[in-house]
Amino acid sequence: MELNGVEIEDTFAEAFPIKISRILITAATKRWATVAAQEATGFGTSVIGCPAEAGIEKYADASETPDGRPGVYIQFCTFGFKSLEEQLLERVGQCILTAPTTAVFNGLPDAEKQFDTGRKLKYFADGTESETEVGGRKMHVIPMMEGDFLVEDTLGAVTAIAGGNFFIFGDTQMTTLTAAENAVDAIGAVDGTITPFPGGIVASGSKAGANKYKFLKATANEKFCPSIKDKVEGSEIPADVNCVYEIVINGLDFESIAKATEMGIRAAVAVPGIKKITAGNYGGSLGPHKFNLHDLF
Amino acid sequence: MELNGVEIEDTFAEAFPIKISRILITAATKRWATVAAQEATGFGTSVIGCPAEAGIEKYADASETPDGRPGVYIQFCTFGFKSLEEQLLERVGQCILTAPTTAVFNGLPDAEKQFDTGRKLKYFADGTESETEVGGRKMHVIPMMEGDFLVEDTLGAVTAIAGGNFFIFGDTQMTTLTAAENAVDAIGAVDGTITPFPGGIVASGSKAGANKYKFLKATANEKFCPSIKDKVEGSEIPADVNCVYEIVINGLDFESIAKATEMGIRAAVAVPGIKKITAGNYGGSLGPHKFNLHDLF
Amino acid sequence: MELNGVEIEDTFAEAFPIKISRILITAATKRWATVAAQEATGFGTSVIGCPAEAGIEKYADASETPDGRPGVYIQFCTFGFKSLEEQLLERVGQCILTAPTTAVFNGLPDAEKQFDTGRKLKYFADGTESETEVGGRKMHVIPMMEGDFLVEDTLGAVTAIAGGNFFIFGDTQMTTLTAAENAVDAIGAVDGTITPFPGGIVASGSKAGANKYKFLKATANEKFCPSIKDKVEGSEIPADVNCVYEIVINGLDFESIAKATEMGIRAAVAVPGIKKITAGNYGGSLGPHKFNLHDLF
Amino acid sequence: MELNGVEIEDTFAEAFPIKISRILITAATKRWATVAAQEATGFGTSVIGCPAEAGIEKYADASETPDGRPGVYIQFCTFGFKSLEEQLLERVGQCILTAPTTAVFNGLPDAEKQFDTGRKLKYFADGTESETEVGGRKMHVIPMMEGDFLVEDTLGAVTAIAGGNFFIFGDTQMTTLTAAENAVDAIGAVDGTITPFPGGIVASGSKAGANKYKFLKATANEKFCPSIKDKVEGSEIPADVNCVYEIVINGLDFESIAKATEMGIRAAVAVPGIKKITAGNYGGSLGPHKFNLHDLF
Repeated sequence: MELNGVEIEDTFAEAFPIKISRILITAATKRWATVAAQEATGFGTSVIGCPAEAGIEKYADASETPDGRPGVYIQFCTFGFKSLEEQLLERVGQCILTAPTTAVFNGLPDAEKQFDTGRKLKYFADGTESETEVGGRKMHVIPMMEGDFLVEDTLGAVTAIAGGNFFIFGDTQMTTLTAAENAVDAIGAVDGTITPFPGGIVASGSKAGANKYKFLKATANEKFCPSIKDKVEGSEIPADVNCVYEIVINGLDFESIAKATEMGIRAAVAVPGIKKITAGNYGGSLGPHKFNLHDLF
Repeated sequence: MELNGVEIEDTFAEAFPIKISRILITAATKRWATVAAQEATGFGTSVIGCPAEAGIEKYADASETPDGRPGVYIQFCTFGFKSLEEQLLERVGQCILTAPTTAVFNGLPDAEKQFDTGRKLKYFADGTESETEVGGRKMHVIPMMEGDFLVEDTLGAVTAIAGGNFFIFGDTQMTTLTAAENAVDAIGAVDGTITPFPGGIVASGSKAGANKYKFLKATANEKFCPSIKDKVEGSEIPADVNCVYEIVINGLDFESIAKATEMGIRAAVAVPGIKKITAGNYGGSLGPHKFNLHDLF
Repeated sequence: MELNGVEIEDTFAEAFPIKISRILITAATKRWATVAAQEATGFGTSVIGCPAEAGIEKYADASETPDGRPGVYIQFCTFGFKSLEEQLLERVGQCILTAPTTAVFNGLPDAEKQFDTGRKLKYFADGTESETEVGGRKMHVIPMMEGDFLVEDTLGAVTAIAGGNFFIFGDTQMTTLTAAENAVDAIGAVDGTITPFPGGIVASGSKAGANKYKFLKATANEKFCPSIKDKVEGSEIPADVNCVYEIVINGLDFESIAKATEMGIRAAVAVPGIKKITAGNYGGSLGPHKFNLHDLF
Repeated sequence: MELNGVEIEDTFAEAFPIKISRILITAATKRWATVAAQEATGFGTSVIGCPAEAGIEKYADASETPDGRPGVYIQFCTFGFKSLEEQLLERVGQCILTAPTTAVFNGLPDAEKQFDTGRKLKYFADGTESETEVGGRKMHVIPMMEGDFLVEDTLGAVTAIAGGNFFIFGDTQMTTLTAAENAVDAIGAVDGTITPFPGGIVASGSKAGANKYKFLKATANEKFCPSIKDKVEGSEIPADVNCVYEIVINGLDFESIAKATEMGIRAAVAVPGIKKITAGNYGGSLGPHKFNLHDLF
C-alpha cells in the first residue's frame, strides 16, 4: 500500500493498557499555562526510566474553560493507580501550584476513579484555605504569595492505552525530522492523545532486552540503526534510508490513537524524501491493542 | 535603601550547599537543543517534592561548542552525589538520548567529581558502540534509529549553592509577574546560575513547617499572602501590595548568585508599580551563605 | 450591562468597507509558514501610514491544505482593488516567494474578483516555468535556488469590512495588556478575521483630525489618555483606570467581526482588574457597519 | 579550501553602499519588544520591491538600555537619506508607537546624520506632549491610551553596506535549511548586522536582468536552480546537491559583515550533508566592497 507515493508496510502497532489522569491547567495567558504544563510534563518520556509518561494534549480557548481563562489539557500516565496518584500530587503540587497564575481543573470529571488531590493540596494553605465553586466545579482556594491558587476537589483517571506508534524512514536526518515534527503537530489536533517523548519524537527506538548487555531491559534496535546498516545482519534499513524516527502515542481510547496515527502518517508522507512508514510490535505478545496500519486509510 | 524609587529591605537571602552537575546539550539547531533541555529539566522545581532541581543556564553559540553546533547548558541539583548520579543517568538517558539530534558534553570538565554516565549509557548500544574524540573530548558513539548519539565519557559535578532568592512586591499580579519575568530574563545573562521554578518564578513562597497541619514540611507563608492580609496577624503585606513573587536562584558559586540577584532586582524595579524588594532567610540558622541585599548595589 | 462584573458600555463600534485579499501559505513546517506570514504581514497596521493592513487569520493543519503541508491564512487590506493588487504582487513576491519552502494558494477561490498574481510571478522563472495541478488548483511552478516555488494562478479578493473595534479599560498597564493579549488570542479562533496592529493590539487609539496640529489626519484621543486625565476637560478615564487598549478587527463579513468582538470581550473581562469595555465610533457618520456591544451578548 | 570537509569556493561576495538607520526599541518585556520589532521590520526584504530592507540586529538586556527595560536593536535600510527618513517616520509611527509598552531610542547617537523623527512624532500628542530626559537622552513624552510613549528627539543614520552574502549547497532541502537557520542564528551574535530576508534566508537568489522576460530587473538564476540542473546549460549545481540557500547580510561596516559571513559559514558547514559554500558577485562591477571567502578563515 502506498500513500503519496510512500510505502505503508502491512503491519501493526501493538499497544498496552496504562492508567491516565488528565487535568486542565488555566492561567492568566496561554503562555503562562504552557510554562506550567511544560514543567509538569517534563522528565516524562517513558516509564522505563521516568516516574511517569506525560504530555500536553491540547489547548483550550478562554471560552472553553470553567474560569474563562486560556488553558491547556495535560495527561500523566503510569502503570498503576497508586503510582499515578503519587505523581499527580507531586507534579501538580510542585510544578503547577508553584507556577504563576495557574488553576487546576479535573480533565476527566466523569471517570469512575477520582483522586482527592485537590483536597490534599489545600493543606498547603495551613488553615487559611476555603472553598468556592467555579463553573459548577468544587474548588479549594489556597491563599499564596501571588494571590489565590484554585484547585478542583478531585482529579479523575481511567484505564487507557499507551504505546501506539509508527516509524518514519527518510533519506536524511533533517528530512525525517521535519516529517516527524509535522506528524506530531498533526497529532496535536486529535483530542485525547499525547506524544510523551521530547518534542513528541523518539530518536532511539528500542527493542526489549539485549543481545550482549543482558542486565538492560531495553536496548537500541540494531536492525533499525542506519549508521550500522552495512554491519548488522538482517538490517531493516534500505539503501536510500539514513534516518528513522518513531512517534509514540498514548491516549484515552482506541479510536483517538487510531485517528492520531492516521493523521500523523498523512502529515509525514507529505514531506519529500520520506521513503517508508512502518510500526512496532512484539508479534502480538505484549498488548491487547493492535493498530493495523492498512486499516487506517 | 531605594533603587529606582523602590525600597530594598535591609535583609539577606540565606542559601545552602547542594550538589550540581552541569552538562552541555548540542543539537541540529538551537530549537532542538531547547526541546531536549526542557524535557530533561522538567519536574525539577524543588527537591521537596521533585527528584531534582533543574534548569537551563544559558545558550551557547555554534562557535562555543566542541562540535560546532548550537547548544544549551543545563544544571541538575540534588542534596547528595548518589542521588545526583541517579538523576543524571535517568534524565540524560530518558530525556536527551531519546531526543532528536542531541549530543551531550561535560559542562564541568575540570571538576574533581566525575560520574561515568557516558560510559554507562553506551550499553544502550548493545555491543555496537564505539569511541571517538570531538574537540578533545572522549566521546561514546551509540548507533540509534536516527543515527549516532554521542555522549562524553564522564560528566562533572561540584558542591555548589541553592536557595539564593529575593521577593518582588507589586501593586497587581500582572505588574508583579512582568517584573518577575524580566528578573528571570536578566538572570539568564549571568553565567553559572539557574532559576529552577516554572518560568523561573515561584508563585507560592513557603515557610518551613506548619502552624496547623504539622505533618507538612513546608506550607504557605501566610504573612506574605496578599489575599488574606487583613485577616492574618502580623501580615507583612502593605496596603498597596496585592502580589508577591519569589525568584529562587541556584548556582555554581557565591559570586554568580550574588551577580544574578543584583541583575534580577535591577530588572524588577524598572517596572512601574513595583513597591518593595526583600529576601527570605531563616535567621541564619539554615545555610552558611548570606546575600545581603544592600551589599549588592 | 455587566459581563463578569465589568461594565459593557451601551455604544457601538463603527466600521467601514475595505478590500481584502486572503491567501493560504503552506510550508515545510508550521514554523516556516509563520516566518513567511510574519514578513508578508509586517508594516501593515493601518492604511493611514502603511501600504496595507495585514495580519494572520488562522493556521491550517496539514489535513486542511491542498498540498498536505501545514499552512497559515493571511489577509491583506487596502481601500481599492488597484492598490490591493499592487500590494499582493509585492508582498507575495518579496516576502513569500523569497521565504524558505513556501507555496501560495488562493484563499478566496470563489470570489468574483480574481487577480492574476500567480500568472505574473511566474515571470521570475525567466522561461523555465511550468504548470501543474495540486488539489484541483492550477499552479505555476517556478524553479528557484531552493527548489520549486508553487503559486496558484489567481488570488481572490472581496469587498469586506475594516475597523471593528472595542476598548479595554484596566487598573494597570500590565493588567490591561494581559486582557488585550487574551482578547487577541480568542479572536484568533474566529474564522475570517484579523487584528492588524502589533500583537493585535493598539496602544495609541486616535481621534480623526486634531485640535492643535491641524496638518495631521489623526492624533491621540486625549479624552482617553490616562496619564493626562486630570488635565483634560471631559476626560473619559475613570479614577481607577490607568490604561486603555483598543483592539481593531478587520474581517470578511459582518458576522465574523461580530463573533470576534464577542469572543474578544469575553476573554478580556475574565482578567481581574478590568473595569470597563467600550467601543469607538464617529456618531454613525463614517461607516455603514455598526456593532452594538449590547447586541453581542 | 575546505572547512569541516566542505569546499569553500575561491570567490568573493560583492556588496554596495546603502543608508542605514538603527534604533533601539525597549518595552515592558523582551517579548513585547520583539512584537514591535517584527511589525516594524516586516515587508522589508529587498529594496527591489519593498519600501525598505529591515531586520532585527540584536537584543539588549535590561542592564544595557537607557530606561532599564529589555530592548531590541533594529535597522532600516534604503538607498537614500530622503526615503530612509520617510520609512523611519512611517514605520516608527505606525508599527512601534502603536505597539504595546514601547519606547524608541537613537541607535546611532554619534552619527553625523540625525533625523528629527522624534520631534515630528510628538505632534501626534496634539498639544499634550512634553519633554523629559532618560539616561541622558532627550525624550518626547506623548500621552496615549495605554499611557505615555517616549521617543528620542533624533534618530541617527549612516552610509553603510548592503548585500554581503554567501550560498549554502546541500544534499536535501531540509539539510540545507537547517544549515541556513544555524548560519542566521550565528550571525545574530555579531553586532552591527542584519539578515533582512524572511527568517534571514533567501530561497530565491536571483541574477540581474533576464534572458527572456526583459521587463524584469531580476529573475531566478537558472544556473543555481537544482530542479532544472539537467536542463540548463552550464548549471553550477553538482549532482549531489538538491538545494541552495543564500544568506544576505547588511551591516554598519565592513568588519561586522566580514565577521558575520565567517560565523555564518562556520555554523553552516557544521551540518552534515552540506556540500559547498560560495558567494555572489557581479565580477566587481557593482559594489566597492569585496568579501573574499578565503580571507575570512
